[in-house]
Amino acid sequence: LSEGLFDAVLARGGAREAVSDGAWLQAMLDVEAALARACADVGVIPASHAEAIAGACRAELFDVAAIGAEAANVGNPAEPLVRALRAHVGQPAADDVHRGATSQDVVDTAAMLVARAALGALLHDLRGAASAAATLAADHRDTVMIGRTLMQQAVPTTFGLKAAGWLVALDESAVRLADVRLAAQLGGAAGTLAALGDAGVEVLGRFARELGLDEPVVPWHTDRTRVGELAGALGEACGAVAKIAGDVVLLAQTEVGEVREGVEGRGGSSAMAHKRNPVAAISALAAARQAPGLVATLLASMEHEHERAAGAWHAEWPALRSLLTFTGSAAAWLRDCLENLEVDVERMRGNVGDASVSVGAASELVDRALRAHGER
Amino acid sequence: LSEGLFDAVLARGGAREAVSDGAWLQAMLDVEAALARACADVGVIPASHAEAIAGACRAELFDVAAIGAEAANVGNPAEPLVRALRAHVGQPAADDVHRGATSQDVVDTAAMLVARAALGALLHDLRGAASAAATLAADHRDTVMIGRTLMQQAVPTTFGLKAAGWLVALDESAVRLADVRLAAQLGGAAGTLAALGDAGVEVLGRFARELGLDEPVVPWHTDRTRVGELAGALGEACGAVAKIAGDVVLLAQTEVGEVREGVEGRGGSSAMAHKRNPVAAISALAAARQAPGLVATLLASMEHEHERAAGAWHAEWPALRSLLTFTGSAAAWLRDCLENLEVDVERMRGNVGDASVSVGAASELVDRALRAHGER
Amino acid sequence: LSEGLFDAVLARGGAREAVSDGAWLQAMLDVEAALARACADVGVIPASHAEAIAGACRAELFDVAAIGAEAANVGNPAEPLVRALRAHVGQPAADDVHRGATSQDVVDTAAMLVARAALGALLHDLRGAASAAATLAADHRDTVMIGRTLMQQAVPTTFGLKAAGWLVALDESAVRLADVRLAAQLGGAAGTLAALGDAGVEVLGRFARELGLDEPVVPWHTDRTRVGELAGALGEACGAVAKIAGDVVLLAQTEVGEVREGVEGRGGSSAMAHKRNPVAAISALAAARQAPGLVATLLASMEHEHERAAGAWHAEWPALRSLLTFTGSAAAWLRDCLENLEVDVERMRGNVGDASVSVGAASELVDRALRAHGER
Amino acid sequence: LSEGLFDAVLARGGAREAVSDGAWLQAMLDVEAALARACADVGVIPASHAEAIAGACRAELFDVAAIGAEAANVGNPAEPLVRALRAHVGQPAADDVHRGATSQDVVDTAAMLVARAALGALLHDLRGAASAAATLAADHRDTVMIGRTLMQQAVPTTFGLKAAGWLVALDESAVRLADVRLAAQLGGAAGTLAALGDAGVEVLGRFARELGLDEPVVPWHTDRTRVGELAGALGEACGAVAKIAGDVVLLAQTEVGEVREGVEGRGGSSAMAHKRNPVAAISALAAARQAPGLVATLLASMEHEHERAAGAWHAEWPALRSLLTFTGSAAAWLRDCLENLEVDVERMRGNVGDASVSVGAASELVDRALRAHGER
Repeated sequence: LSEGLFDAVLARGGAREAVSDGAWLQAMLDVEAALARACADVGVIPASHAEAIAGACRAELFDVAAIGAEAANVGNPAEPLVRALRAHVGQPAADDVHRGATSQDVVDTAAMLVARAALGALLHDLRGAASAAATLAADHRDTVMIGRTLMQQAVPTTFGLKAAGWLVALDESAVRLADVRLAAQLGGAAGTLAALGDAGVEVLGRFARELGLDEPVVPWHTDRTRVGELAGALGEACGAVAKIAGDVVLLAQTEVGEVREGVEGRGGSSAMAHKRNPVAAISALAAARQAPGLVATLLASMEHEHERAAGAWHAEWPALRSLLTFTGSAAAWLRDCLENLEVDVERMRGNVGDASVSVGAASELVDRALRAHGER
Repeated sequence: LSEGLFDAVLARGGAREAVSDGAWLQAMLDVEAALARACADVGVIPASHAEAIAGACRAELFDVAAIGAEAANVGNPAEPLVRALRAHVGQPAADDVHRGATSQDVVDTAAMLVARAALGALLHDLRGAASAAATLAADHRDTVMIGRTLMQQAVPTTFGLKAAGWLVALDESAVRLADVRLAAQLGGAAGTLAALGDAGVEVLGRFARELGLDEPVVPWHTDRTRVGELAGALGEACGAVAKIAGDVVLLAQTEVGEVREGVEGRGGSSAMAHKRNPVAAISALAAARQAPGLVATLLASMEHEHERAAGAWHAEWPALRSLLTFTGSAAAWLRDCLENLEVDVERMRGNVGDASVSVGAASELVDRALRAHGER
Repeated sequence: LSEGLFDAVLARGGAREAVSDGAWLQAMLDVEAALARACADVGVIPASHAEAIAGACRAELFDVAAIGAEAANVGNPAEPLVRALRAHVGQPAADDVHRGATSQDVVDTAAMLVARAALGALLHDLRGAASAAATLAADHRDTVMIGRTLMQQAVPTTFGLKAAGWLVALDESAVRLADVRLAAQLGGAAGTLAALGDAGVEVLGRFARELGLDEPVVPWHTDRTRVGELAGALGEACGAVAKIAGDVVLLAQTEVGEVREGVEGRGGSSAMAHKRNPVAAISALAAARQAPGLVATLLASMEHEHERAAGAWHAEWPALRSLLTFTGSAAAWLRDCLENLEVDVERMRGNVGDASVSVGAASELVDRALRAHGER
Repeated sequence: LSEGLFDAVLARGGAREAVSDGAWLQAMLDVEAALARACADVGVIPASHAEAIAGACRAELFDVAAIGAEAANVGNPAEPLVRALRAHVGQPAADDVHRGATSQDVVDTAAMLVARAALGALLHDLRGAASAAATLAADHRDTVMIGRTLMQQAVPTTFGLKAAGWLVALDESAVRLADVRLAAQLGGAAGTLAALGDAGVEVLGRFARELGLDEPVVPWHTDRTRVGELAGALGEACGAVAKIAGDVVLLAQTEVGEVREGVEGRGGSSAMAHKRNPVAAISALAAARQAPGLVATLLASMEHEHERAAGAWHAEWPALRSLLTFTGSAAAWLRDCLENLEVDVERMRGNVGDASVSVGAASELVDRALRAHGER
């Protein structure tokens, strides 16, 4: 995966690779392999054919550019891939490639596999950010700072409580992301499993188990609640990241100066030596703010016509890829930001001023957040 | 609640009333009453004061217009309401009104109460729509129709399976909506519970229980994952509704003619007597399509600064109200649509043509969907 | 127009009234009156009938609630209004009411009239805000302050140049809004003007002139580029407002303290006497941030099917109403904010610190902005 | 530019290349070259230095991946590019590279150049689509078909008038796109032009002329009305495309069968030989539907803080790139669709049925649209 001009800033973290063309290609092949095995398991195709098919389901055997170019003739890359796979497999097994499936089955199930891998990568960073927030909350459990409401200094709080609030938001959005239902899709031409004869429902179950995905009650080719749920959870996570990154940017203001990002060689300004820009927080914001619009695109695209949508289905592909990438980048940058955050305890104390300091139940609340974090 | 020019079309169902000014006012008063009781329970204020306060927390005692007008001076309606409530309560209990709380506590917790009521109303209609879909699925378990992919006739399916797909989508979005975490918010000026002394955390717990809301780990005044989650679930439900309503509109096309809405006196055209417009499906679409943009607004508004956001908090109010209203309207119209749907079985069979009819596992899948529906 | 609980904060300014039910009702009646006059002008109906019709086109004669309730039967309020208008007019002129038109003609043209009135109100405030910005730019042409990039103090600039940047943004978005093409819509049942016989195109032209709207090349019932253009221009204006209001909020931070809103009795905090919240800027932000999502709704709703959209048309109504209202509120609050902005010149100078002050061409640029403003 | 798995479907047309990394790199270099020349013109730097700098401003000399990787340290690719350019230029001219400018000047002005090139490509296809619509309108000026309102057959119209409506929408959105104000950005560290001494304003003017961009009244680094305007116009064009592509999909339905896409070897189905999927219209829809969400992202990102935004600026890059790409793809696919559209005149006539045919002023309106098209 080559690095582009903006990727290091906007597409940090492992999600970008998890949604790459190569990853998509392998995911579609994994779907074909799982389908062949499921069909063999129930006796729809010979086991030897399934073996031959699965053996050819390796991305390095295929030419992404050629498949991509041919996709224009049918409107999706699964159809040319199936043809190429058949050529690789050769007769007699070739006829059993893609048995009982339609292109959408391959693309939709592959999308779930791609999403699962991307979620794995981004949850790793989101949980890393949560751990860093937990450390900040614990370390600064009793660090007094001024609370600010409507951007005005109000009454004292602690930096521990602020970090505990970050922690809870990250923990809860991670739980939501981990809970998203990712299910296999298999239905054939019109979603009836007709081409698999009596074995259809059984193949569906085995197919899902092969891939480690949920088995849906019925094929979900035009029920996009799963995609909507995934989109919503990603948007929620980006919102949580944006709040925290925004706080860091505000606290790092020259006039506030209560935190700064402490990565050597980053964020300096050649022209203005005194500046230290919070690059990680800024980049996290840039990525997180892509989410609301992309979630809107995915929600608007839930309106699938009849048994296969004419446009709404295709519209999901770039939006989902982008949303996973940007959520991953937001999480990766936030993790970096929080892991390297330098807290100026003196400055915090100084900004409280002469106000008598009563931070109420702040420390008790920090302990609750840390306990809840530990129990996850 | 007076009916406006567009409300019968765009704001059908009970959610509109549940998010009305009157409902909001009462919700804020319920919050104050619960707070007073919680404070009394733990001995922060005298029980008699709590009684006096709770007794005055009736919306009919207050002037919405006056409170709304004064809200402009502080940027939220809770502050003038608290002053008015204090005046009603009189001394000595007046000083114990709003004890330990800040305006945001009142507005945020009231928003959760309002959302709960609106969700109740809209889930009623969403489940009604699901029941109607279940009836259609059962009645037409074996009604053959042509499947359509990319808007072209493809291979046969059954209307039962189509309705079963609708059913599963409605059921699953209803589950998601019912699972949304609605929690009480109480934190005081900067979210530390400082004004409640040692009793803060205990008051928070009792306050939440009084209202039947979840107790959060820490105050969530600037952690808007709950709002994001609610928004995502509403958007998902609207997407499910839009898919179904869209299918009805397409099936009702003159050239397809497989379904029509059968409500006497609705959808006719004075100029064109032969027309029967699917008004319910159309109105459901009009409402459902408001959701993606409103969800985007709520997700973008998750970026709350420090201990109280300067704008992002306030931005939630109209977007959440609209989103609840439109989701409610979409659900109510869809329910009406499906409960009155006339299915032309002959036409469906006719559109399949001479194609040999194999509908695969369709009936088996219908049974699975009905079984899953029954188990909810 | 009664004041609701949130209206004073979120729906300030004249746009709210301009898009009210009463205004919509009158606009639809103005359309019917203009249509009757245009028809009479070309001899399609008798002049006396046009007079009778126009005479009855007064909102106070009609019951909004009744019309709104009946709208549910057909999916729009124009049809019941036409029936009510016919009843008021009586025979023989009743049959000439709504001659050659369809409901969409009435709603679409009324939407343009409503938009024009709302734009008038909001442009008044937007230009007022621009004037206030111009005054600030002139008054502080040479007031040195620190420039801030990525929220870090950078090199000096002037408050005059900052205000000049605000001014140019406001001026240019006002120009764009004033340039939006608002055209009459008249096409009849399928947009062919068929019901007007040979006179159709001539009636269209006279109808447009009657209302002071552009005459379209062809009926635009399903060409929503006008709505898209209006939406985009409103979104752009809200973005300009948000940037400025955001700057005010940031400059008003306790730690920066370079500006504050100087309205007596507003923004104070009973609990914290030292606070002065920038309520106007905050409220402007809350309104402006509704725009991106609403613009997305309107752009997504441009996809009108065939000769009248089944849902996309109806979806425009609430989104356009809200977008006009919020843009108006954002403009009104920003105007209030800038007209009452207190600038702390000493504090600005102090925040520049010891840095040698070179503000480059700042004053020259201020002069350019003021000159361009004067020439508009 | 290598072809990816989804690009042929989702990123057709010339805009994709115009916004590629290579194009961005060259655009940033063009900015540096123009700046050097402008500085030399007014005597700020020696002409020989400008020549040396301009001579090195060729993309092939630079390593995109290396510059992209270093961008992570500062948050944008301009800073490492300037360093690499200085190394290429060598002393003594190296010190005059990037004279008086800041990274944002380079990125913002390059964005305008990239946008101009992408607009050129997409307007080519949009106008091509308009020409095809004009041909359809002329050829079918008197082809009678049934008008459809709310997806029900209504009264007759002509296919010529339908195509004329498409034509006007395409023409008007093309005009709007062509009118978008693209201006040079130059302001230096805080937008004051301070580093250019007295020559600042003059350099700004020459810089703009060198690049063929508008000269702004004042630097627009944090006035994003231009970006908002561009976004709105792109969204409007996508809406126009979506309406037309949607009509094609609906008319191509098996049950309607009035048009089909006539490209050999495209849209066929191996499994279902009778199908001919409207791949071009579907792909146009898939691309066009990305626009509303992306426009929302760009509008929400107009809120730039102070003299350089911490995140909102960076957030524009991917959203603008995507929006240009998708608008280009939508235009290219629509052009292909309309240029190859086969119209079944018999079927259209047949669908009108026995209804007496009066198409009113339809032909007159077609002529108006063609005339207006010819005059552009």
